[in-house]
Amino acid sequence: MKQKRYGILDNISSPADLRGLSYDTLGVLCAALREFIVDSVSQTGGHLASNLGIVELAVALEREFDSSRDRIIYDVGHQCYVHKILTGRRDRFDTLRQYGGLCGFMKPEESITDPCITGHASDSVSVALGMAHARTLKNQKYHVVAVIGDGALTGGMAYEALSSAGTSREPLLVVLNDNNMSIAKNVGGLSRHLSRLRVSPQYLRAKTRIKERLSRIPGGGTITRAVSRFKAKIKRAVLPTSLFEQMGFTYLGPVDGHDLKSVCEFLALAKKMKKPVLLHVMTQKGRGYAPSEQYPEKYHGVSKFDRVTGAPLAAKKEDFSAFFGKELCALAEKDNRICAITAAMPSGTGLTRFAEKFPERFFDVGIAEEHAIGMAAGMAAQGLVPVAAIYSTFLQRAYDQIVHDIAIEGLHVVLCVDRAGIVGADGATHNGVLDIAFLRSIPGVKIFCPSDFAELRVMLSRAIYRETGPVAIRYPRGSEGAYRKELSAQPLVCLHEQSGSEVTIVTHGIMVNQAIDAAEILMHEGIRAQVYKVNEIGSGLEQAYAEVKEKLGGWCVVAEDVVPNGSVGEWLAAHRSERTDLLNTGDRFLPHGGVNELYRHCGIDAEGIAAYIMKNRNGKENGVG
Amino acid sequence: MKQKRYGILDNISSPADLRGLSYDTLGVLCAALREFIVDSVSQTGGHLASNLGIVELAVALEREFDSSRDRIIYDVGHQCYVHKILTGRRDRFDTLRQYGGLCGFMKPEESITDPCITGHASDSVSVALGMAHARTLKNQKYHVVAVIGDGALTGGMAYEALSSAGTSREPLLVVLNDNNMSIAKNVGGLSRHLSRLRVSPQYLRAKTRIKERLSRIPGGGTITRAVSRFKAKIKRAVLPTSLFEQMGFTYLGPVDGHDLKSVCEFLALAKKMKKPVLLHVMTQKGRGYAPSEQYPEKYHGVSKFDRVTGAPLAAKKEDFSAFFGKELCALAEKDNRICAITAAMPSGTGLTRFAEKFPERFFDVGIAEEHAIGMAAGMAAQGLVPVAAIYSTFLQRAYDQIVHDIAIEGLHVVLCVDRAGIVGADGATHNGVLDIAFLRSIPGVKIFCPSDFAELRVMLSRAIYRETGPVAIRYPRGSEGAYRKELSAQPLVCLHEQSGSEVTIVTHGIMVNQAIDAAEILMHEGIRAQVYKVNEIGSGLEQAYAEVKEKLGGWCVVAEDVVPNGSVGEWLAAHRSERTDLLNTGDRFLPHGGVNELYRHCGIDAEGIAAYIMKNRNGKENGVG
Repeated sequence: MKQKRYGILDNISSPADLRGLSYDTLGVLCAALREFIVDSVSQTGGHLASNLGIVELAVALEREFDSSRDRIIYDVGHQCYVHKILTGRRDRFDTLRQYGGLCGFMKPEESITDPCITGHASDSVSVALGMAHARTLKNQKYHVVAVIGDGALTGGMAYEALSSAGTSREPLLVVLNDNNMSIAKNVGGLSRHLSRLRVSPQYLRAKTRIKERLSRIPGGGTITRAVSRFKAKIKRAVLPTSLFEQMGFTYLGPVDGHDLKSVCEFLALAKKMKKPVLLHVMTQKGRGYAPSEQYPEKYHGVSKFDRVTGAPLAAKKEDFSAFFGKELCALAEKDNRICAITAAMPSGTGLTRFAEKFPERFFDVGIAEEHAIGMAAGMAAQGLVPVAAIYSTFLQRAYDQIVHDIAIEGLHVVLCVDRAGIVGADGATHNGVLDIAFLRSIPGVKIFCPSDFAELRVMLSRAIYRETGPVAIRYPRGSEGAYRKELSAQPLVCLHEQSGSEVTIVTHGIMVNQAIDAAEILMHEGIRAQVYKVNEIGSGLEQAYAEVKEKLGGWCVVAEDVVPNGSVGEWLAAHRSERTDLLNTGDRFLPHGGVNELYRHCGIDAEGIAAYIMKNRNGKENGVG
Repeated sequence: MKQKRYGILDNISSPADLRGLSYDTLGVLCAALREFIVDSVSQTGGHLASNLGIVELAVALEREFDSSRDRIIYDVGHQCYVHKILTGRRDRFDTLRQYGGLCGFMKPEESITDPCITGHASDSVSVALGMAHARTLKNQKYHVVAVIGDGALTGGMAYEALSSAGTSREPLLVVLNDNNMSIAKNVGGLSRHLSRLRVSPQYLRAKTRIKERLSRIPGGGTITRAVSRFKAKIKRAVLPTSLFEQMGFTYLGPVDGHDLKSVCEFLALAKKMKKPVLLHVMTQKGRGYAPSEQYPEKYHGVSKFDRVTGAPLAAKKEDFSAFFGKELCALAEKDNRICAITAAMPSGTGLTRFAEKFPERFFDVGIAEEHAIGMAAGMAAQGLVPVAAIYSTFLQRAYDQIVHDIAIEGLHVVLCVDRAGIVGADGATHNGVLDIAFLRSIPGVKIFCPSDFAELRVMLSRAIYRETGPVAIRYPRGSEGAYRKELSAQPLVCLHEQSGSEVTIVTHGIMVNQAIDAAEILMHEGIRAQVYKVNEIGSGLEQAYAEVKEKLGGWCVVAEDVVPNGSVGEWLAAHRSERTDLLNTGDRFLPHGGVNELYRHCGIDAEGIAAYIMKNRNGKENGVG
């Protein structure tokens, strides 16, 4: 990859280099950027379609603004590759999303041009408004821009922020990157509103008029005057119906996001306006690479793939999500009370097949986890069995709804907490290391921790048929490990019994594989270790612990893929007077990287657990901290 | 109160009794209801202005719908008194918000006519949509109605739900109770949009036309036909600009919410429409009682007051919120980086004076906790010191934003967690018993626990000037107790040292008063008890504990006003091998009642703590569970 030349792109070392170039040359640059992105992502994996869609817009933003001075926030951040390439990080793209390498999202410690961390959807306008307020209060001069997709705009937080920003009169530019699709096909009323804006003949006419007028504008002062003139016209004629105008924004667009000149001109115009402006830019997700143009959802996030055919280099193993989806279909076949809810992740959570088979019982609410949980509560209250499959990190956004709408009434909602534990390549914003702590805090919530597919099957069925209150099932990204066993009925079971054990390793979920391997390593070293597995966290665990308490005497090491505070280890250590050491992801946020590397990083891989035990067997009395 | 007669109201024992009455008689009933509410709330305290504003609308809802069969959800629920009075609970109004008495919010266990619990804002449309889906899937026949205020509509969750409901085609009625005010004066773009809808001459004309037309409609079938006819007209002529239409709703209104006949007619009309309908009803908060008409914000939630003058019966003592507000003003006077953020609670959080003195540094974002925290992150990233004062129970809604926008970057945001611990009369939905667990789970978040005003002063200053990362300060509703002391610099200090103590009571915050009193009670019984107080939860506590570990040997009882999982007690028990018993609010949701009664209920009042110690001093070894 390093040998390949990318023409004009090879001459760009910073955004300043863009400013002398003609639109034609910039067009050539955009093609080179797409070439580079496809080459690079085909070799590392990463986000493809979202970055291909935004090439012209990102180039225009770097050209019209100064990203080292202005604050440009890419919402979610899965479309920030062009920005990273142009701001001095192109050389590191072969390390993308790898341990110690380039982050796949915005990250301030990487570059001054990344004004904040990103990863979750819908936050950018809030953060941007905070920055704009700071600028004004500190009497500084820089522009603040939030670039947000139409998908992220379905999140309630974005609406709260638009409403707040619109009435603030704070100069601020929101660029709506509208590809009529978030990760999956967009849903909801906003989506419908945007399609109306897109096709309305009035808007098309307005667009033409703006273009004509812009082409006639020579310079700054004139632009300002012209702006107020044609803005008044637009307002009267076509724009009072947009949601954004109602929120207090000046609405500009829609503009063709692949027409570089237009995008630059609109950005230059928006920059002059001393108020909240929303620029509506239409882009095509996956543009410029045939496979991703055809299947933008499939090419949203990819593993390494064949550059020519677009085919993945490694066949995909069945993962927990897919297995869950299959099992849920089997249960739903026989029970029409079962409904599935997703927040814009039908494919990621394994629900595509459910959606096809049971369309009337499948609910994709868009990026709206709060509403997903509130709606589930309403369904459960009226006798349905809602199963909400949401990634652990995104379920954080519905913490209050789990408390308020579900748990206080003890409603029977099944939360399928996908991507629990260490997720890896996506980094700190995507790890599911808080769910045990926040779910365990809520009275009456039970958490099941399957270690393999067979256990997931049993626990899903149990969650639906034996439980009557809120229950969560947490399972990791990816496939099952070597451990394969049908579930024991107990919340706490011994997997690897060894009489006269010197130490007991306690764990749960996918970490079972690391614990068993650690016990094997220790056995080779002459140290007897038994392994206990927690199947269920909640009220039942207490009793189960009381029953096996005798066998769990002596030294315990609790190994988990979550933060220490609120962990199962903390719970267990609180319940026993014998030495209890905790191994976990630590009271910190993790860097991105491969899952195995991060296990090692945390010392919760088999070798790390075994090494800890060998080193500390004669050591200090209490290793909780 | 029981002796007083309320005329026609005395003859109403269920909503069925409303249906035979003429509009004139219903008008008399409404006056009687207002009389009863003012009489009753003046004697018990409770929500006044919100209930006075909704009298006609609530009567019309009970008349046109069947609340024992249809699902009528009052968002937040602080306007459900009329509903409760009409559905058989009038006799219990003298017990309102009291321990064992009537709940101030919707509560299914009280009545079949309360379809779900309420207390937090903006959830009703989500829950209603879930119920509507359930009805359709189960092929049942009932109406689902969400009654939501314009204030609650600023919450992102409501927008997510409107967007989802609007495209669902699910028959569902959302009644917008628009009093141009939530608890405080409403803010944001939506508010602006609503005022436009209200005053637009087109709307006024449309309203008149709808009324005329309705008066000419004799019966059901005709209504349906008429609906489609005039709906088409409305759509073309006046309505395409409403946010609700854009979300996919059929918009009806605005209608005068105190014109009972009109409200009934519009409800009857909406009931016939087999699709998502939004009915915009304009009401006057506090209507019918002069003091609350004049100061609706002041009379939103009240203590007992003089029926004639409207003056509170007891003078208000300075509380933690007011003290905080005063201190923040003093600091902000000398430091213009300090900003204050509230989510629709300027008065409740003590920020009214700050808002007056520093309007440019005061930000009320409306009911939008997620945005409040995201905006704070942006401010902090650009060198301001944002201080966000939010009630503990409402901060739950911003858990993800604290993680994602603040903690991952370690931004210096000060979270003032008001109403922490047991709040009491408002019940399970309002207690702040989860904050320690959810904040402690987040890496890098430090929590200060002031026990009195003097400590709050020192901790606020320390949070602003000595801390560089995210820091929370949790303090209770109400005033300080007998304990008054300047803060020691240590995260863990001994307050009540007794050599040769048999037991150590560990506590934090306002609970210090109970712990000291418990130690006194024990002393009288010949039991020596020392008291330790946790001032700071987080990384510093570990080291502080290590330093005093020797003195904290033996039996510890940790008494707290939070849930057990994730508590300080759990943390401490995990760190020591000696017996550690936890006393807290329990792994359950609490009923409503007075704070002292609930302390007693939980056994965390001085007597309860002392009794526990006396009873268990020779008892079992481990009382963690």
